[in-house]
Amino acid sequence: MLADRPSAYAGPVKRLRLAAAQLNVIVGDLDGNVERVLDATKTAEADGCDLVAFPELVVTGYPPEDLLLKPAFVADNRRALERVASGVGRCVALVGFVDRVGDLLYNAVAVCAEGRVRGVYHKRRLPNYAVFDEQRYFATDDEPLQLYRVAGVLVGVSICEDAWAPGGPVYDLARGGAELIVNLNASPYHAGKVADRERMLAERADEASCTIAYVNLVGGQDELVFDGASLVVGPDGDVVTRAPQFAEALHCVELEIGLRPEGSTGEPLPVVELSSEPVEAEPIGSSDSVPRLGPVQEVYEALVLGTRDYVLKSGFTDVVIGLSGGVDSSLVAAIAVDALGPARVHGVLMPSRYSSEGSITDADLLTDALGIESRTIAIEPAHEALLEMLAPSFAGLPPDLAEENLQPRIRGTLLMALSNKFGWLVLTTGNKSETSVGYSTLYGDTAGGFAVIKDVPKLLVYELCRDRNRRAGRPIIPEPVLSKPPSAELRPDQRDDQSLPPYEVLDPVLEAYVERDMTAAELIAGGADPELVRRVVRLVDLAEYKRRQSPPGVRITTKAFGKDRRLPITNRYR
Amino acid sequence: MLADRPSAYAGPVKRLRLAAAQLNVIVGDLDGNVERVLDATKTAEADGCDLVAFPELVVTGYPPEDLLLKPAFVADNRRALERVASGVGRCVALVGFVDRVGDLLYNAVAVCAEGRVRGVYHKRRLPNYAVFDEQRYFATDDEPLQLYRVAGVLVGVSICEDAWAPGGPVYDLARGGAELIVNLNASPYHAGKVADRERMLAERADEASCTIAYVNLVGGQDELVFDGASLVVGPDGDVVTRAPQFAEALHCVELEIGLRPEGSTGEPLPVVELSSEPVEAEPIGSSDSVPRLGPVQEVYEALVLGTRDYVLKSGFTDVVIGLSGGVDSSLVAAIAVDALGPARVHGVLMPSRYSSEGSITDADLLTDALGIESRTIAIEPAHEALLEMLAPSFAGLPPDLAEENLQPRIRGTLLMALSNKFGWLVLTTGNKSETSVGYSTLYGDTAGGFAVIKDVPKLLVYELCRDRNRRAGRPIIPEPVLSKPPSAELRPDQRDDQSLPPYEVLDPVLEAYVERDMTAAELIAGGADPELVRRVVRLVDLAEYKRRQSPPGVRITTKAFGKDRRLPITNRYR
Repeated sequence: MLADRPSAYAGPVKRLRLAAAQLNVIVGDLDGNVERVLDATKTAEADGCDLVAFPELVVTGYPPEDLLLKPAFVADNRRALERVASGVGRCVALVGFVDRVGDLLYNAVAVCAEGRVRGVYHKRRLPNYAVFDEQRYFATDDEPLQLYRVAGVLVGVSICEDAWAPGGPVYDLARGGAELIVNLNASPYHAGKVADRERMLAERADEASCTIAYVNLVGGQDELVFDGASLVVGPDGDVVTRAPQFAEALHCVELEIGLRPEGSTGEPLPVVELSSEPVEAEPIGSSDSVPRLGPVQEVYEALVLGTRDYVLKSGFTDVVIGLSGGVDSSLVAAIAVDALGPARVHGVLMPSRYSSEGSITDADLLTDALGIESRTIAIEPAHEALLEMLAPSFAGLPPDLAEENLQPRIRGTLLMALSNKFGWLVLTTGNKSETSVGYSTLYGDTAGGFAVIKDVPKLLVYELCRDRNRRAGRPIIPEPVLSKPPSAELRPDQRDDQSLPPYEVLDPVLEAYVERDMTAAELIAGGADPELVRRVVRLVDLAEYKRRQSPPGVRITTKAFGKDRRLPITNRYR
Repeated sequence: MLADRPSAYAGPVKRLRLAAAQLNVIVGDLDGNVERVLDATKTAEADGCDLVAFPELVVTGYPPEDLLLKPAFVADNRRALERVASGVGRCVALVGFVDRVGDLLYNAVAVCAEGRVRGVYHKRRLPNYAVFDEQRYFATDDEPLQLYRVAGVLVGVSICEDAWAPGGPVYDLARGGAELIVNLNASPYHAGKVADRERMLAERADEASCTIAYVNLVGGQDELVFDGASLVVGPDGDVVTRAPQFAEALHCVELEIGLRPEGSTGEPLPVVELSSEPVEAEPIGSSDSVPRLGPVQEVYEALVLGTRDYVLKSGFTDVVIGLSGGVDSSLVAAIAVDALGPARVHGVLMPSRYSSEGSITDADLLTDALGIESRTIAIEPAHEALLEMLAPSFAGLPPDLAEENLQPRIRGTLLMALSNKFGWLVLTTGNKSETSVGYSTLYGDTAGGFAVIKDVPKLLVYELCRDRNRRAGRPIIPEPVLSKPPSAELRPDQRDDQSLPPYEVLDPVLEAYVERDMTAAELIAGGADPELVRRVVRLVDLAEYKRRQSPPGVRITTKAFGKDRRLPITNRYR
């Protein structure tokens, strides 16, 4: 299919000033989203841009999920688009919205210019895997493609998944004469995805011999974080410019588009004429290209943005965190402070009869380093009351998990009481390793509104802490927290490694089983310890019911628990 | 497309003895499922059947969800199918399994005869709406259709969704010469669905002028209940026989198939020859056709089966229920007793300082009527301890929800302690009306493994109680429980109608908003009280985070909370 590759650019150069508007919109906030789009459109025009491109479905926010099943919502989104279009002037705007034709919905882009919608593109490839359910909502069609002449440049439009496989709409647009292809995205973050995208775009640009501008959404939406990181790739596959990660930006770039020699492309596509000359006669200059963050800091920033947006977009201002003196709650507190500022983060120490002295002093060191307020509520009175209330039922039976679990459940109840009284959102502190094997107490340490590090394996928790300390140049997370052995402190001298393999052993098994869908048999065939693998896999399977009742949290791996991994609870496959 | 309707049957009659094997299999239990299928196959052959049909994906159970992403699971399913096929003799077996061709998976039926797979059909229409995600996993193809000659009758095979729209595979099979079409299903229950199915099958049979045998799965799988209720419809659209609802059955029917006159169909499809004569020379007779349950009893039986299967398939034997003396917990206890027997149901009364005398005596009446054991644990000691522990934080602030919520959270903690100690599954008791508006305490009354009546609106709760009492001929649910005004008893003289509109007003608004996807604006335009609608809709939207952390429960409406209704938590659309 690609043998007939469009030939490279040659001849004189055309100029187009493009603004990548990576906005942080809110799902369902049609009025607010329209306002943001119009503001950016006006700024782009004032900055002398010829073309401003917004993320996929910028009008509704992404993903709107079953809001799309409400006909009134779709109609409201259409009216919102009309308001956007009527505010567009000479700078052409590419605006993602939901189009409706008869009974069918389309994930669409409106090409807006001079107060009107001049064309609509329907997404052709609908992802229906991992966190995506687009075939639940949208149809595809094979309406003929068309191009738009903007500042004399032939521009093609595509959406997200359309660009991820060889051939397809991007290639067809280029064969049909496109000199610039703009790809509108709502592409969620996972660790390493920026590199995947740059590789993919370089391949597409090379195939198409065409400049590609990739514009991505930014912001947190429930479990997803959209990382922005828009970029432009030239026809040779080289990166022209990179917009910031994890931050809003109106990233402007002066593009120089080489004219193609006659006959280098296929059958020309129809062209909608919008403008033949640039808005500004002279080049203005481009926004600075932003270097990419390191791999650990990138994850940290994803957690900060995901947490901030969940809290603020849900209408909260403050959060409360149970501080155990351990590494997980310390990291969550540090992230919360970076997300919201220290005045909006409230720590609670809830020591029990089994808490070590160190856990209290370590938590105090942390609150000092972060500059957050904290209070201490010893759980002994409720602990003793509950043990006595249960004594007739438990008479003659040895103490076990039933007694241990009372302690986190009292703590969960206290945090929720503070949440109810003061309107603070409770952040939970379980990491992915614990969440995987169910090393947690349901309605205890899992009780809360947002599980900041639920997709962060324990070993990465340590890396994130060390990286944060290194960047701060001082111990934000106190050193003793990082060096002592992990413990839940629910009985005397308890340590994680009494119940679980060391995390150096556990985390790779979990990664293979959870993220790569390997089975126990395959792991054992690959040389892993059979008894250990069987035990871990069984724990993961049995903990499915706990995960279903756990709060959402930021997805940072290629497969997070949640809508990314849809396993039945009732499941006998081992 | 249907103008060219196949003409009706005429001429002599052929005879085929069909067994509809509506089995209750378990997702992922490949070995167990193979054993059940083989047992049924042997029984069908011993009963002189020519053809035995199993439910859709009977080898894996339905829905296998992301188990399908594990290549090893798919390979194991294929080996399981081979074991089934090798055990099939003269009675031809239609067996649902997952087929793999290259990298693609198909929702498939194997036609097994005399120890071998003689043909495979791939489902052509993949549902990807409501609770279905089949396009996440499966591909479709347009391999030519084929027929199978069984006992001299031309048999076509199709799967579930294939039959739900006019035209399509069922029509094509009939046009191609099929005299009997067997449709294998995993069709989940909702109230009224049996009538929908019978109507749909009558239309399909009439269009196709062909007998259709509809074979459905039975049993609970997480939130879904498959209701069995297999049936056979003749070419005139009349029901030939009905198999039981909510119970396993090997339902046998002697079919008399009229020969079609030459030329009454279209281009004949290729035929795989399996058997030209019936296994038994003489008719043996059919299983009795089973009348359908009344509309309220049908829901009750769905709740019983869904609860029994969740408990037992998850490996539990016993359940524990907090009994408040209210109608919800009383209904849940009655369902649990019908599901598991009274010896496996444990009641706990947990009165507080605000509990009325009536709530205790009513709960006692219930436990007597059900014959279940119960214990009483007053929550006062923990209640007082927690209030004192929080006093420094709450100093100077008026009491509010923060104090009220302590009580259900103590109860949740006690129930979970009993669960942890004795291995009992906690059944929660919230109904759909409360769940919709968030009239519940997260980690309190929502704490537990299975939410039996989460999809049952409050008014239907009362109907179910009255119907159960009527069928028992005595008050299983005590009369005072049905006549007193509902109250959460979290403060003195509290009643539901202080916080919520009367359920007669609330339930219809919820039904329109939740199940029919209407918006507040539409409801108001339709004449509903604007203030009330806005308040209810807002409560429903804000409670989304609570529902996400609530346990699964039986789906009995056309839209249950859970994977049926996928709304964002972060959502500003009002």
